[in-house]
Amino acid sequence: MENFVLESPTKIIFGRDTLPLLGRETIALGRKVLLVYGRQSLKRNNLHQQICGYLRDSGLEIIEHGGVTSNPLLSHVRQGVELAKKHEVEVIIAAGGGSVIDSAKAIAAGAVVKHDVWKFFSAKKGITAPLPVGCVLTLAASGSEMNGGMVLTNDEKRLKLGAGNKKICPRFSILDPTLTFSVPADYTAYGAVDAVAHILEAYFNASGRNTAIQDRFMEGLIINIMEACEATLASPDNYETRANLMWGATLALNGWARAGLGITGFPMHLIEHTMSALFNTPHGAGLAVVIPAWMEWRLEQKPEKFAQFAARIFNITEGGVTERARQGLQHLRAWISRAGCPLTLKELGINESAIPELAANAQPQAKIWRLPEYDIDTICDILRLSR
Amino acid sequence: MENFVLESPTKIIFGRDTLPLLGRETIALGRKVLLVYGRQSLKRNNLHQQICGYLRDSGLEIIEHGGVTSNPLLSHVRQGVELAKKHEVEVIIAAGGGSVIDSAKAIAAGAVVKHDVWKFFSAKKGITAPLPVGCVLTLAASGSEMNGGMVLTNDEKRLKLGAGNKKICPRFSILDPTLTFSVPADYTAYGAVDAVAHILEAYFNASGRNTAIQDRFMEGLIINIMEACEATLASPDNYETRANLMWGATLALNGWARAGLGITGFPMHLIEHTMSALFNTPHGAGLAVVIPAWMEWRLEQKPEKFAQFAARIFNITEGGVTERARQGLQHLRAWISRAGCPLTLKELGINESAIPELAANAQPQAKIWRLPEYDIDTICDILRLSR
Repeated sequence: MENFVLESPTKIIFGRDTLPLLGRETIALGRKVLLVYGRQSLKRNNLHQQICGYLRDSGLEIIEHGGVTSNPLLSHVRQGVELAKKHEVEVIIAAGGGSVIDSAKAIAAGAVVKHDVWKFFSAKKGITAPLPVGCVLTLAASGSEMNGGMVLTNDEKRLKLGAGNKKICPRFSILDPTLTFSVPADYTAYGAVDAVAHILEAYFNASGRNTAIQDRFMEGLIINIMEACEATLASPDNYETRANLMWGATLALNGWARAGLGITGFPMHLIEHTMSALFNTPHGAGLAVVIPAWMEWRLEQKPEKFAQFAARIFNITEGGVTERARQGLQHLRAWISRAGCPLTLKELGINESAIPELAANAQPQAKIWRLPEYDIDTICDILRLSR
Repeated sequence: MENFVLESPTKIIFGRDTLPLLGRETIALGRKVLLVYGRQSLKRNNLHQQICGYLRDSGLEIIEHGGVTSNPLLSHVRQGVELAKKHEVEVIIAAGGGSVIDSAKAIAAGAVVKHDVWKFFSAKKGITAPLPVGCVLTLAASGSEMNGGMVLTNDEKRLKLGAGNKKICPRFSILDPTLTFSVPADYTAYGAVDAVAHILEAYFNASGRNTAIQDRFMEGLIINIMEACEATLASPDNYETRANLMWGATLALNGWARAGLGITGFPMHLIEHTMSALFNTPHGAGLAVVIPAWMEWRLEQKPEKFAQFAARIFNITEGGVTERARQGLQHLRAWISRAGCPLTLKELGINESAIPELAANAQPQAKIWRLPEYDIDTICDILRLSR
């Protein structure tokens, strides 16, 4: 096990009928609230009215900043920063999925500094004392509700970059699975794929040799997320499977599985972000295509780990190491397909001819994330496996 | 999944060469330190001198309170409270295993109130604003380094009771596996048994129906702790297996596995505590005897869960449900035995005739923990299975 420091500052409030706690949790952080939300999720369940009601009942003043898109945009975050500064907001409440939470985090970090918020993403500035963020989660996917990461698309530069700091971990997150009942099938599956990708990035990229405890934790999560995804798609209002998806996605990227793995990196996310940046591909859909391609490319380098994956996730124990490894990948591909997700660039509407442009677009992030192995040629090789 | 609120306020600093961080972490909490430790562990590795050196180098003033015993005593904690009050201590540093950390927590809670510290354990008073606690862990076992629980033996009343509150969670814990290299074989095994017991209490006592995510997390931990225990006993200076034992034991009782399980309870601990209270049995040794007895008694009520345990921990898939369930228990018993732990009251030196006295001694805790099912007759029935 590699050395690690683990801090989990987010208070998780999980379950049915937990939304009424929003006012009490928020007022402990400040009185003037910037409420950040997207375009769809609050319209369902009458959620916008409920949230504003609970905040106002606690005597909070609300400034609204809706309209976050599913690949959240720097330009919209900049507007949020202006709004937060102008009204001297004290706390940011994110009500939505990962895009909304990431936007809220960026606004929280940007509202207290004089420089442009993009400098956090281009690694020119560090985050020091952001405004506190609280969340009401409406999509099981990104894990942003319990970590210090955020991803933003610079719509001028057509770059999608990630930044992170434990100081922007949400102070609290309300996770009520019933708020995800109305998430449509495609986004339910994209969310599950995103969560599985977060685990696979850690599982196959860990630099440490002894990852016994983390491996079993991650394997259990993958099995649960896959099962919960299929069951939810068959029965979208099943509380228990929605709950497993929600808590599983949070655990997939809250730091606990990664603690002790050593350096891991996010090469699959690196590649997917270019699709979102250039083609506005939904993040989970892009990952559904990148995961099997990246795994096929990676398999030769770590056949034993892939065979372990095949054995523990899919009970594949017959045949040689490489054969078992390949079968495991084939089973994962089949799950992605059964969930209704694309498996090829073509299905995403991306022409093969765009591969060099995608690979070039990934280079700034590869540099910031210190992944020199992922040069243009390598990313082209990987993407060609997803034709 | 049942509703839950999860907070993990303890900062974990894990790995080799992390002890030099002690001064910096401590001074963030206060300048006047009560250093609590036991009788053995600090003598090894020159640890006492190292700890005092790092604290003094950071300009901290140290008041010492050594001599904690392995079933920590109320009388000794009371002395610690007096010392903390007299010197107006600002922070408590626990250097040792669970007994030392539990004592430190009790002193931290007792130092700021006028009433006797035992009232926290007899459930007459609640913990409000304890002094901050920091830990240097030297034994993989109790999980106290990352939770809000503590257990103390009232040496006048011959009662061993537990109390808990998230406010007494350590602020930080330094977990360096090399500090456990010199733990002797018996206590290494007792620690592993304690950690496995913490998981089994949650696994078999959960009131919630859907525990899919937590189950796989717990099953993975049990497998890892069992494997790491055997490997460590064979090779006591193996960093990786000591690391797996240490992190596994912390994860076993830090609240993450329990989140969402509903009410769980600690009936095995309830029964073991009476052995420690009346016969000063080492906690892990007592649990080694209670676990199989309690499981045999419980098996009839939850055969399906026991069969799941048998399948996922020991790959037992042949035969009927009860047969598989029994085989799983038999395998667990074999592991306890291979680890060199006792399996019967007789091996602990406790005569069968003491069973009624043990059962009666458990009643105050059964009442506080709200386990009315565990009346005198039931506990006698369970203990008779360990003759």
